Amino acid sequence: MAKVKKSAEISPKDVHMPGTQGVSIRRLISQQDGAANFAMRLFQVQPGGHTPRHRHAHEHEVYVLGGKGSISGTGGEMPLETGSAVLVLPQEEHQFRNSGCEPLVFLCVVPIGADV
Amino acid sequence: MAKVKKSAEISPKDVHMPGTQGVSIRRLISQQDGAANFAMRLFQVQPGGHTPRHRHAHEHEVYVLGGKGSISGTGGEMPLETGSAVLVLPQEEHQFRNSGCEPLVFLCVVPIGADV
Repeated sequence: MAKVKKSAEISPKDVHMPGTQGVSIRRLISQQDGAANFAMRLFQVQPGGHTPRHRHAHEHEVYVLGGKGSISGTGGEMPLETGSAVLVLPQEEHQFRNSGCEPLVFLCVVPIGADV
Repeated sequence: MAKVKKSAEISPKDVHMPGTQGVSIRRLISQQDGAANFAMRLFQVQPGGHTPRHRHAHEHEVYVLGGKGSISGTGGEMPLETGSAVLVLPQEEHQFRNSGCEPLVFLCVVPIGADV
């Protein structure tokens, strides 16, 4: 039978990666659930917060659930709002920032090996 | 540079698969965007509508954005609401139904070869 979780009942964990400020993660679907190919995580970035400006071998597929912010990289900065879908390709430099007054909330799907 | 789309600006297409009623799809991120591993789609199921009751070789990872409904399979029926995350494993029978008065809206991520 399919596995169903309520995201609000999953405890958020603070992200301590260098260059990160005010970011938490909820692991919604991971290898532990039996997912073989990709993992779904929910991130919250507090006002003024940001993810690290970095690049890596895996892609991101992101969907913004709430708040306002931006994604920036070598090509500039683009605004994000509820309903924005984002593809970050492998090795693209990127950083998510909250530019609003409410938490910036987004889903981020990655290959299963990148969900560390 | 990362690719950003507004989901509301992507035209929905009706789903005509047998056993489907009142379902549309927006392809947010697909192979055409350069995604190599998985695709992100946004589904809307109208009140009273449903996806086909079927099974297939690929998994689904789903996140409910709005509305109320259920997923049913051989193991019974489970309610869905905003914030529900669902993992449907390969070959699990499943059907999504809208049991509410508003559209049931969810993201569904699948391996890229299954995004047909």
